Amino acid sequence: MTATARHGQRPPAPPCVMVLFGASGDLTARLVVPSLYNLCRTHALPDDFLLIGISRSDLTSKQWIDGLYDMIKSQTVTVSSEFSQTSLHEPIWDWLSSRMIYMKGDFTKSETHEELKALLDTSETQRKTGGNVLFYLATVDRYFSTIVEHLGQTGLLDENKNTNGEAARWRRVVIEKPFGHDVNSAHDLNKSLARHLTESQIFRIDHFLGKNAVQSILAFRFANGLFEPIWNRDRIDHVQITVSETVGVEDRADFYEATGALRDMVPSHICSLIAMVALEPPVGFDASSIRDKMFDVFTAMPTVSPEHAVRGQYGSGTVLGHPVKPYRDEPKVDPSSNVETFVAMRFEIDNWRWAGVPFYIRTGKHMAVRSTEIAICFRKAPYAAFQEAPVDSLRPNWLVLSITPDEGISLQFDVKQRGPAMELATVKMDFHYEEWFPKEPNVGYEVLLYDIMTGDQTLFMRADIIQQTWRIVQPVLDAWAREKAAFPDHQSGGAGPAAADALLARDGNRAWRPLPAVKKQE
Amino acid sequence: MTATARHGQRPPAPPCVMVLFGASGDLTARLVVPSLYNLCRTHALPDDFLLIGISRSDLTSKQWIDGLYDMIKSQTVTVSSEFSQTSLHEPIWDWLSSRMIYMKGDFTKSETHEELKALLDTSETQRKTGGNVLFYLATVDRYFSTIVEHLGQTGLLDENKNTNGEAARWRRVVIEKPFGHDVNSAHDLNKSLARHLTESQIFRIDHFLGKNAVQSILAFRFANGLFEPIWNRDRIDHVQITVSETVGVEDRADFYEATGALRDMVPSHICSLIAMVALEPPVGFDASSIRDKMFDVFTAMPTVSPEHAVRGQYGSGTVLGHPVKPYRDEPKVDPSSNVETFVAMRFEIDNWRWAGVPFYIRTGKHMAVRSTEIAICFRKAPYAAFQEAPVDSLRPNWLVLSITPDEGISLQFDVKQRGPAMELATVKMDFHYEEWFPKEPNVGYEVLLYDIMTGDQTLFMRADIIQQTWRIVQPVLDAWAREKAAFPDHQSGGAGPAAADALLARDGNRAWRPLPAVKKQE
Repeated sequence: MTATARHGQRPPAPPCVMVLFGASGDLTARLVVPSLYNLCRTHALPDDFLLIGISRSDLTSKQWIDGLYDMIKSQTVTVSSEFSQTSLHEPIWDWLSSRMIYMKGDFTKSETHEELKALLDTSETQRKTGGNVLFYLATVDRYFSTIVEHLGQTGLLDENKNTNGEAARWRRVVIEKPFGHDVNSAHDLNKSLARHLTESQIFRIDHFLGKNAVQSILAFRFANGLFEPIWNRDRIDHVQITVSETVGVEDRADFYEATGALRDMVPSHICSLIAMVALEPPVGFDASSIRDKMFDVFTAMPTVSPEHAVRGQYGSGTVLGHPVKPYRDEPKVDPSSNVETFVAMRFEIDNWRWAGVPFYIRTGKHMAVRSTEIAICFRKAPYAAFQEAPVDSLRPNWLVLSITPDEGISLQFDVKQRGPAMELATVKMDFHYEEWFPKEPNVGYEVLLYDIMTGDQTLFMRADIIQQTWRIVQPVLDAWAREKAAFPDHQSGGAGPAAADALLARDGNRAWRPLPAVKKQE
Repeated sequence: MTATARHGQRPPAPPCVMVLFGASGDLTARLVVPSLYNLCRTHALPDDFLLIGISRSDLTSKQWIDGLYDMIKSQTVTVSSEFSQTSLHEPIWDWLSSRMIYMKGDFTKSETHEELKALLDTSETQRKTGGNVLFYLATVDRYFSTIVEHLGQTGLLDENKNTNGEAARWRRVVIEKPFGHDVNSAHDLNKSLARHLTESQIFRIDHFLGKNAVQSILAFRFANGLFEPIWNRDRIDHVQITVSETVGVEDRADFYEATGALRDMVPSHICSLIAMVALEPPVGFDASSIRDKMFDVFTAMPTVSPEHAVRGQYGSGTVLGHPVKPYRDEPKVDPSSNVETFVAMRFEIDNWRWAGVPFYIRTGKHMAVRSTEIAICFRKAPYAAFQEAPVDSLRPNWLVLSITPDEGISLQFDVKQRGPAMELATVKMDFHYEEWFPKEPNVGYEVLLYDIMTGDQTLFMRADIIQQTWRIVQPVLDAWAREKAAFPDHQSGGAGPAAADALLARDGNRAWRPLPAVKKQE
């Protein structure tokens, strides 16, 4: 069979209105509208669809639509690497833009929500959207509670339950990271959302989790008979997760100075990756089953002690051949900023499968290469029966799940060298997604939007999960808030600070895998 | 590290004389002398070396040497695919040929052996070969006992033991397949060899076993922590071993009419492959440790019942684009020949590791492609938690160890397809020796000759092992001798007779893997 033989076509999402708060913002142009366009292109949007954009900007619907068109068309929009839209196809854009209207309004004021309510009532009659509404909060996070409070008070979040307790019409709210700044604020945010919403109505969107490769970890683990039997403490020595970026803080200093690498990456992105590697076989592949098992993983993780965490901040250096500035010299960054741009940590999972198997993670900006990978280090063969081969010459097997820039899987193992003597050499074999499957633009975000419309919460973070991941890192946040660091502590364009190497070295001479080589297209 | 970083250089073999019975025959020119040449080239032959060729042909040393030179130089010699000698380098040939002498003689007569004794005495003084002699019986097998009897009676097989019981000078005898024709004749041959030789002096050479890939199976299994834990009945469903040839009987009808596919391939080649896959971890990598574990495998194998064996004989057809004759029309073949050119069997190994895991083997001539591979079929994942994926849509993982024409390893597994839905696709990743290591010409035979000179019996069949493998197939030999078959029963250029498919199909719908695609160079 060919690799694509089992590929199916999904049906269109149910009729609905999408209300976009922050309609003139960067996220709208960069991700939301291009993803909606892609959903149109693949016939995944319902005919009875309406997008209502809301922001404070003084725009007509036409101006708003034309502005988005121009930005997408001219590709001046800063697009994520996943969005590689080939070219804008006019009939598709026409279809979508005929279903877009703009409403000027201040979403901190109740008048706006009353006006929205009237507009939704009209639209329901005109567009037959069945009363289903998706509120997308593409705003900065400090407005999440306010908007939800207003929506709730205006009655816009009420679902009509039918006799089965299912929503006859649904109301869903999408929020973007950050889901809090520490364990307390995450708890507060969840509490305020819960005043007007049930957990099944809340979609905490994490772009990262939409990636094909992240989902495919589960398929890889549970569709194959080969790997699951060795996926445990008996056979795995440790796990390394690397999310390295070549970009610096760019134009996000406002956000980043208040956040830092740990908050930005660890409780969301990286904890999701840990869960995908570590979770027990789910009962089913539905959201509830998978998120239950994710929750189990985090519940089994003790808090990270500060001595198992390393922070770093990039200095000057050269990234991909270009000289770059230190973090402290970036625009809008405090020249004595103590914010970390690199973090490495050692996690543990105290359960039967993983006890004694450290999960080392590292992530940073201005690193040598852009790469997200999970590397599983298996225990070495227990003894070397080979002539002339001392035991310590045996190398461990590595299974590497690559997520960016190229999705794939590689397996590193030892073979006998060619030639007369029984001598070993380390080799590797690879599977690359791009060699087997057609590339699909922007599939990550698109999948998430479709999942929200169809009510699949698998790829979204649940309130209790968020609180667990904040709990795990809280001691490190506290310790780092108390003490200043000697920043910058590493050059840009490398693999982070020396302390990150020491973190592994003291655990029986472990070492980070070298970062992958830079690809030509970078 | 690079793949070759741990590659060492072996020291020259100890001083010795090699006496070659059948010096004017095909084997000498095709394999033995080219392999000695390769050993020279890589400085693996001792300076104190002498090759004495013996045959009934009326030749001077010069004529013998020049004849070999011409045959090798002009490449008119039918070389095995492993012998891809780039070009004859004169200084190396001069070095070797200055150490070659020819002796005319009938090796069934005692005078010849007396004359040889005198020649060896002289040589020892002149060449300082230390009394070490390797008698290579490159003759048809019916002379093996006779020659050894004469050598023994002439005292040429006596080793001088030193106080440790080790041979101060060694005398070794090399014999080529077939090692008997059934369990009784194998027993008789072993018994007659044992009258004059200890087992440590006997080297039963099987070209097949010298191949890099066969040895590398052991390295693959025991140098890696990943595979050994799943290498058992809990995780493996069954094993398939295929040795398919595109050649027909060629000019070997005399031999083949008396032998057939089963005798030619199964108790030697294919049983060796089974042992490499199935053996328990050896205590060490020395000959005795490995052969002990091989012996254990065969001892645990019940005899094959005739209903678990299928024979076939090729008819007409097309092989690699060329029309070919049926076996019965080949020169020197009986037009009503009942000799099988294809065999498929089901073996079992009744031990803790393998009970209930069938080892299916098949081998034949005039098949669609030349290929030797071992395919390990792992058990499927126990359940499908994937939406829209019924359990029976899960496919087993396959690990394929390829031996010819390309040495390598491939792993077939399922991944999530790209795209929004959780749908699976079967993909594979490969390791190819040729992409990692320089190709070494004729390395198989060369290794074996070097091993004989250095006394390493790892790759040679031991008497008790030979007897076990004949025991296992004896009921099939007996049944086939009693009953004629409806031959020919399959077209040339395919994958053998339909009965071979039925052999697997009745065991729970198993099926042979398709033969690999024909490579361009074929």
